[in-house]
Amino acid sequence: MADPPLNIGGGSLLIAWQLQDKNVLIVGGGEVASHRIDSVLTADAHITLVAPVKGLHARTKGLIDMYPSRITYYDRRFSGPDEIHKMDMVLTALDDAKYSRDICEMCRKARVPVNAADIPELCDFYFGAQIRDGPLQIMISTNGNGPRMAALMKKKIQTALSGKEGEAIGRVGVLRAQLKKRAPPLPPSGHAPDGGVLGRRRMKWMSEVCNNWELEDLTQLDDATITKLLDEGWEKNVVPTLDQLKGRRKRRQPVSQFSQWLPAVGSFALGAVCATLVLWARKR
Amino acid sequence: MADPPLNIGGGSLLIAWQLQDKNVLIVGGGEVASHRIDSVLTADAHITLVAPVKGLHARTKGLIDMYPSRITYYDRRFSGPDEIHKMDMVLTALDDAKYSRDICEMCRKARVPVNAADIPELCDFYFGAQIRDGPLQIMISTNGNGPRMAALMKKKIQTALSGKEGEAIGRVGVLRAQLKKRAPPLPPSGHAPDGGVLGRRRMKWMSEVCNNWELEDLTQLDDATITKLLDEGWEKNVVPTLDQLKGRRKRRQPVSQFSQWLPAVGSFALGAVCATLVLWARKR
Repeated sequence: MADPPLNIGGGSLLIAWQLQDKNVLIVGGGEVASHRIDSVLTADAHITLVAPVKGLHARTKGLIDMYPSRITYYDRRFSGPDEIHKMDMVLTALDDAKYSRDICEMCRKARVPVNAADIPELCDFYFGAQIRDGPLQIMISTNGNGPRMAALMKKKIQTALSGKEGEAIGRVGVLRAQLKKRAPPLPPSGHAPDGGVLGRRRMKWMSEVCNNWELEDLTQLDDATITKLLDEGWEKNVVPTLDQLKGRRKRRQPVSQFSQWLPAVGSFALGAVCATLVLWARKR
Repeated sequence: MADPPLNIGGGSLLIAWQLQDKNVLIVGGGEVASHRIDSVLTADAHITLVAPVKGLHARTKGLIDMYPSRITYYDRRFSGPDEIHKMDMVLTALDDAKYSRDICEMCRKARVPVNAADIPELCDFYFGAQIRDGPLQIMISTNGNGPRMAALMKKKIQTALSGKEGEAIGRVGVLRAQLKKRAPPLPPSGHAPDGGVLGRRRMKWMSEVCNNWELEDLTQLDDATITKLLDEGWEKNVVPTLDQLKGRRKRRQPVSQFSQWLPAVGSFALGAVCATLVLWARKR
């Protein structure tokens, strides 16, 4: 029997690949290669860059000069399969499609993940438009339907973010790590002794903090406030607000609540003044 | 000499992994496994699921029943390294951390990418919060700082999107494919004969269409309109609007332009009436 129509297919598996202290080979030194370097440095990998110096883009050159201990540069063409075996990932950014194709075939044989810029059918994975704000990373993929639309989506999403998200996420990460010390997750050797009750309570409490606190308040979770939140919140199984923790009264409504009525109030006053003047002028 | 401080590090490499017709092994059948199945089906892979039937979550069971030709299910525990060699990716979703750790070690030896749910230090890659709208896919990663914040960011981004983005991107993809037939990209054998002039003109024209057209207009790019846009736009090296293409006059400004002044105008009138009434009452 055939499966029901799968309207969930046709996409990619979006993942956050871990490259800390891994080795990445980039073949090619043009502008595209320079953006690959950005992405790979973000993920803390070591880069081996292979490209004749005459084809180096100024941006690539600048990055090589700026990060000598992170990028090992060789002024030559790719030399063959021996270069691939010690690599955890290979990226080609070349004008010559046949050259890229040969490298991709070697990578596939050696089971090394590979991306060939501009030749989607050779790629194990694609890049997308990226947003970075500290620990927050967002990728936008149009699944090969054009980089321009991905850039537009990126702009739209950036407009929707306040710029405080990365900071808030970082502080929540610290809170979470501190909480895990008080309520440890699964031991490495096996099952939780309490059948996971503590873990579930921890996740529920963390969710409530994230849901109930404003983003702005989360950014104010310094180390002292975190200790206080754990002592007076987690230990008593409640979620106090930042104001309660700091012993402040509830803050008054922000000014914008009033200011949104300002045009209407102003117009009312203006209308009253105009009518008075008109009537007064007629009376004279 | 040490490199300058790298404030771009500390992140992941966000990528769109390609799994069409690839083989993915999922070990475990709980709720987390069921969400892994969703992600992998999105990317059109074939799934081998290994988990004793007594531990199957209802959601996992439902998916196995719904997609029998996409998911091969074995009612047993993972049997050993032989299961890994034919796989392109392995995902574990187990309560038993030691069991997960053993599987991850086998995968690393066989150079098969692996993710172990809840044990970040064993993972080649992480999952994140995901948004899907046709060809548009968005991933939000907090780099291990908590799924709750990722879910909040997801909600924020979803609110910023109109729901028309996927459709617009799909239609732009069709336009792009049609344009590529008229202005082919690099031949597979090597360099572009014109030094890339045509390719650059194509990219520039596509960018202008995406930038100048409203999202709503892009969704109306049916096949006939695409042909017309290529004939009257690309061939003449201009970017007509949808209205120009359809021979319509420029649409009038949307009503909202006026309606945003409505409260102020109403208040002005109300103020005038009130003042008149007060003066009139005093006169009597």
